[in-house]
Amino acid sequence: MGIITLISDFGTADGYVGEMKGEILCRCAEATIVDVSHDIAPGDVSDGAWVLDRVWDRFPEGTIHLAVIDPGVGTTRRPIAFEADGRWYVGPDNGLPARVLARHEPTRAWLLSGDPASGIPSQTFHGRDIFAPAAAKLASTGTLQGLGEPVEPRGFRELDISRPERLGDAVKGQVVHVDRFGNLITDVPARCMSPTALIEIGGAVISGMRSSYASVATGELLAIVGSAGTLEVAERDGSASERLGVQKGAKVCVRPERD
Amino acid sequence: MGIITLISDFGTADGYVGEMKGEILCRCAEATIVDVSHDIAPGDVSDGAWVLDRVWDRFPEGTIHLAVIDPGVGTTRRPIAFEADGRWYVGPDNGLPARVLARHEPTRAWLLSGDPASGIPSQTFHGRDIFAPAAAKLASTGTLQGLGEPVEPRGFRELDISRPERLGDAVKGQVVHVDRFGNLITDVPARCMSPTALIEIGGAVISGMRSSYASVATGELLAIVGSAGTLEVAERDGSASERLGVQKGAKVCVRPERD
Amino acid sequence: MGIITLISDFGTADGYVGEMKGEILCRCAEATIVDVSHDIAPGDVSDGAWVLDRVWDRFPEGTIHLAVIDPGVGTTRRPIAFEADGRWYVGPDNGLPARVLARHEPTRAWLLSGDPASGIPSQTFHGRDIFAPAAAKLASTGTLQGLGEPVEPRGFRELDISRPERLGDAVKGQVVHVDRFGNLITDVPARCMSPTALIEIGGAVISGMRSSYASVATGELLAIVGSAGTLEVAERDGSASERLGVQKGAKVCVRPERD
Repeated sequence: MGIITLISDFGTADGYVGEMKGEILCRCAEATIVDVSHDIAPGDVSDGAWVLDRVWDRFPEGTIHLAVIDPGVGTTRRPIAFEADGRWYVGPDNGLPARVLARHEPTRAWLLSGDPASGIPSQTFHGRDIFAPAAAKLASTGTLQGLGEPVEPRGFRELDISRPERLGDAVKGQVVHVDRFGNLITDVPARCMSPTALIEIGGAVISGMRSSYASVATGELLAIVGSAGTLEVAERDGSASERLGVQKGAKVCVRPERD
Repeated sequence: MGIITLISDFGTADGYVGEMKGEILCRCAEATIVDVSHDIAPGDVSDGAWVLDRVWDRFPEGTIHLAVIDPGVGTTRRPIAFEADGRWYVGPDNGLPARVLARHEPTRAWLLSGDPASGIPSQTFHGRDIFAPAAAKLASTGTLQGLGEPVEPRGFRELDISRPERLGDAVKGQVVHVDRFGNLITDVPARCMSPTALIEIGGAVISGMRSSYASVATGELLAIVGSAGTLEVAERDGSASERLGVQKGAKVCVRPERD
Repeated sequence: MGIITLISDFGTADGYVGEMKGEILCRCAEATIVDVSHDIAPGDVSDGAWVLDRVWDRFPEGTIHLAVIDPGVGTTRRPIAFEADGRWYVGPDNGLPARVLARHEPTRAWLLSGDPASGIPSQTFHGRDIFAPAAAKLASTGTLQGLGEPVEPRGFRELDISRPERLGDAVKGQVVHVDRFGNLITDVPARCMSPTALIEIGGAVISGMRSSYASVATGELLAIVGSAGTLEVAERDGSASERLGVQKGAKVCVRPERD
């Protein structure tokens, strides 16, 4: 035990992340704090869910994922923690862990109420006042005793996650993330792709799958199985997102090659 | 001992932060280096002061806050270190620690002159050549002996920090920070706010205090007691700063509700 | 042993860095992971080379520099590791370590093939699938046995690195990096600069060398020996890059003062 990862939309200019780290280290000086991302777009729970899902089981068992994209802070959305697949989630019950929960059954959960020793939590920053103390307590003691109450590990808020559909010999999916490179990461799994597939996206048609970004000329579009194990559309040395005017949520259609 | 936090305006694209971290780890392999922020606007000492103040006592006693926003590097501004409230500041004497010093009396201080073993410091990067070695020495040995001389812990450079004023039944304050979300953080303390206050800022009048960002409709302005314990003006799921064209330094006026 | 620095163009919004950190910590829980930069411009190998060179020997011997700016991922470019000057490089053989190799003779090297225990590497993310596991293995065991094969430590890909030239009594160099402040960092070494030099760059002529950024008035250009030990052109409290419209690769000419 002892690794606490941080995922947030707090950015790195304001000190909010620093405040959370201070709260953790005051309670668990031995914690290994790992910045995963603080640059999730403000309030973008679905993007946070995607990032959390990518890293969840890349970390060792016992890792505590402290994730705070929390536009509903201070409302009735529940502050929670749960264990699934040997890792812990600490954060709001607002769909942020929904992609993880779709893959892993949680085994235990807590409803968090803050650390009584720390006074009343602020209305606007539960990352600092509820979630960081809980993650630190988990890391140092292995339990959340005193910071909330155990609850049934089910009934968590879901996200509206689209799934690719098969329509005849075509598969229709969508862009689930646009990365820093402008690569369009879709939800169409590798197993649906043939080497000669035709990919329609943003008005363009891309023919065939490539095995590297650099296998086409600079400025050309390409399709490849990306590191999430799904179809990715990229522009070599450029941004497919800008080139095609395509954002998260855009549709993609994959067909076997026509003769 | 052993925690060194970093606050700078160096950004994270140039390797400057990496150079500081290397200098620290060469001298104190056991240091726990904590990134607080490297995205303070270039040269914005007052914003750095605000961030430093927010995190100062969130970290455990013994923490060394290494803060470098230093447009006067290489001039007569003094490289210093001081202890206050059990934590250390290492950085330029240019007002950066002024908000901390307004809250805590420093108990001892050093004037830093660099590490003789490292040769002559550069003219432009005392973060790497003077402050990082000093922070590492403090973390590893608890003293700055050999890197400077003890000085009286007073007479530090002040910042022009405005304070809210009471005028009749109104309180006039100002915006002290605009965060990543475009929230306008003011210096008007929570105790000056009543649930039915009228808040005038940037030409808008906001009526009453809310208890969460999500308690108004998307796109609406709201006033709330923020996580600094002061009045904050926000737009739900948007940027109050952009909406109102308001930046740091803008005036805010709080009145009790009129009948 | 145990320090692993990270340099990449992955940004900090996508979780890619988090995936690498997870892979490292699964294999070497004791590793000290140090973020140097993830904001190298996408695919900008030459900028990455410059940052890597700046930090290389600032870190203790035994440090492993894991650097991934890898537009050729999945092509025939070789995944490598080498030791030079007591530190290790792990990353693509695409010129990224070229500036380091120009200063230090490598003493041993490995051609990496991935961790057989982890299955087939993805086509697009060798940072996660090949380089992070290799860095972790090195950190935990001191060898890369099982993740590749030893190769001769030579024949690495070079970069087209320009060198300053002396022409009569002038020295012609170029801008090798533009930093966050808009400072223009050149390759003209300090020893070529006299206090009264004339510096021509981007259509401007700057007369004489300064000893601090703040030794001219706000908004004025100045020349100074920067923290890389080379000529740097800056605008006080502003961006020389924007002011002069000058980017990386721009020419600079230094002449002794004319009478």
